[in-house]
Amino acid sequence: MRNATAKTLTVELGERSYPIVIGGGLLDRAADYLRQAGVPDKSPLMIVSDDNVAPLYLERLESALSGGGYRVVSAVVPAGEQSKSLTVYNDLVTRAIEAGLDRSSAILALGGGVVGDLAGFVAGTYMRGIRFVQVPTTILAHDSSVGGKVAVNHPLAKNMIGVFHQPELVLYDVDTLNTLPPREVRAGLAEMVKHGLIWDREFAEWCWNNAPRLLDLEPEALIYGLERGCAIKAQIVSRDERENDLRAILNLGHTLGHAIEAVAGYGRYLHGEAIAVGMAAAALLGEERGGETGLYAETMLMLRALELPVTLPEDMDTEALMAAMQRDKKFREGRMVYIVPSEIGRVEIASDVDADAVRDVIERLKEKEESS
Amino acid sequence: MRNATAKTLTVELGERSYPIVIGGGLLDRAADYLRQAGVPDKSPLMIVSDDNVAPLYLERLESALSGGGYRVVSAVVPAGEQSKSLTVYNDLVTRAIEAGLDRSSAILALGGGVVGDLAGFVAGTYMRGIRFVQVPTTILAHDSSVGGKVAVNHPLAKNMIGVFHQPELVLYDVDTLNTLPPREVRAGLAEMVKHGLIWDREFAEWCWNNAPRLLDLEPEALIYGLERGCAIKAQIVSRDERENDLRAILNLGHTLGHAIEAVAGYGRYLHGEAIAVGMAAAALLGEERGGETGLYAETMLMLRALELPVTLPEDMDTEALMAAMQRDKKFREGRMVYIVPSEIGRVEIASDVDADAVRDVIERLKEKEESS
Repeated sequence: MRNATAKTLTVELGERSYPIVIGGGLLDRAADYLRQAGVPDKSPLMIVSDDNVAPLYLERLESALSGGGYRVVSAVVPAGEQSKSLTVYNDLVTRAIEAGLDRSSAILALGGGVVGDLAGFVAGTYMRGIRFVQVPTTILAHDSSVGGKVAVNHPLAKNMIGVFHQPELVLYDVDTLNTLPPREVRAGLAEMVKHGLIWDREFAEWCWNNAPRLLDLEPEALIYGLERGCAIKAQIVSRDERENDLRAILNLGHTLGHAIEAVAGYGRYLHGEAIAVGMAAAALLGEERGGETGLYAETMLMLRALELPVTLPEDMDTEALMAAMQRDKKFREGRMVYIVPSEIGRVEIASDVDADAVRDVIERLKEKEESS
Repeated sequence: MRNATAKTLTVELGERSYPIVIGGGLLDRAADYLRQAGVPDKSPLMIVSDDNVAPLYLERLESALSGGGYRVVSAVVPAGEQSKSLTVYNDLVTRAIEAGLDRSSAILALGGGVVGDLAGFVAGTYMRGIRFVQVPTTILAHDSSVGGKVAVNHPLAKNMIGVFHQPELVLYDVDTLNTLPPREVRAGLAEMVKHGLIWDREFAEWCWNNAPRLLDLEPEALIYGLERGCAIKAQIVSRDERENDLRAILNLGHTLGHAIEAVAGYGRYLHGEAIAVGMAAAALLGEERGGETGLYAETMLMLRALELPVTLPEDMDTEALMAAMQRDKKFREGRMVYIVPSEIGRVEIASDVDADAVRDVIERLKEKEESS
């Protein structure tokens, strides 16, 4: 899995287009990739990472960049969703100012979705926006590193404070995935199969058939799955950069998923786990609204093959979930907007979903819990 | 000065183009203008104002909007630069969430530059960006309300945290200027004459000749001056929305001006006062670098005609000013970028300015103080 096998795909966004490089051994060649992407070496770079990832890969990335002629400072934040706060954001801005980052500087996110979102929001707002490079170290981040959505959380709602800020480059070194805890592998695969569920039945079925290889982090399967997942997302984002319409389909499972994360308390559920439950709920809703027969059953099988949760604990407060969904960004002009599958590989953006139908689906996911 | 006299000019930015309406009696017709600008009435609006402006105009704007079918909530922040903080920003986001603002909502800034920058940063980052309407109540805001630059301050540097976020509409009711304290009138006129100094000798001379009428807030002079100032800025911003090159000329006087504000402590100098001193310094630097003869003397006369400061107090620490400039965003890849006039109405973006030359100019502005 050396450089020879690296694949590059491009997210087409006019003058904001950028490459995603996926392969092994990329960290050590980071300086070359940054230079190719047009990041100048006269201004300092800042790497943002977390205290899980930093001990494993930070020094390697720092040396690769220093060796390649870049000046680098690093900032390490506590691992976990709690770091996506304005307080941590402010600390990073302070660090960037003290390190002398200027308009030609770049901020690199070395880590998963949390680090990407946080560092991306710093890059998107520092001096009104400077260069941003994603170096994802999780499977989940194949999703969050494409599309330019960056944000921090507000105590009342997730990702409430953010901007659209496209990276210059995504450098996906799959070697870093070997150190992922199994639970995070599974959670990451939830976003991968999501891309099949919304856009490409064949890919959804491929994920299902190759679930054991993916769970074992078999390189060939992993590179294919990440590449296909990124490519689907890139295709959707290219058509609708700022989420005016089409892009909303990427939120399959997220309306309920975000509510589950908020009600359970950030960190109790991994993001991928919460949206797996959300995707199960959406499939059930979809089948009831006249989607293809077997939609719900098949979705459940796919998610279970990836060892993902598809039910809710009995004691999770339905009304608290409903209230959290009402605060979610997916509400617009007072109506509930819900991404509902009509078949595997196809979803619709439903703006007429009745709150009671959602309440009913939540209750039924709890019954499933009892019977499982 | 009723609606009949309102003038509309358009900032041309492709799909982000927006109108600036300048005239009397506009507050009362706000709902019509918002509707024309495409702001839907199904989602709540939030007006952000400060405790100087709110007692004068907030109720009128609220009634005008409610009467026109909009739901409105308001948030009043303390007047002054201190409100451009992440803390106040966070309070406004909380208020917006609690009031149920969604992606179709708009945030209105009723006030001067501080309220515009702060409310604009909320609008630019709430749910990754929602609609924004500027309702300026100061002369200074004719500058800040055009161009989409919004930001809050970091304790280490001004406007360090921000985004580019274009408004949907600027509604400039000149009736509101009648309640401005004279000191703020003068400070606002500094940005007006700046537009002449960088782009249009004729307009600079018009400001000079009409200084007494402008200081007296004579409506005809005011509407012409604001319109011409906005038009010059709009022209520059249209050619360079994200400040890659040309737009930097708008920063005439700002490199030193921001340093003066920071070193004196935010709030001691009004922004317009600080940049007046900065423009005097830039003219002196420009003349020394080979600009037209009389450049400095004429600039001084123009600024003095508007009763603006053009010297520095003896006890202002030169090295503190130099250090503050080094932290300023105008530094790029280690070099000092300075906007330097070559004649009245024309400036160059100099990237080779020597720190000692700037230090020398600062010292000479202090000597002027002694001799005045």
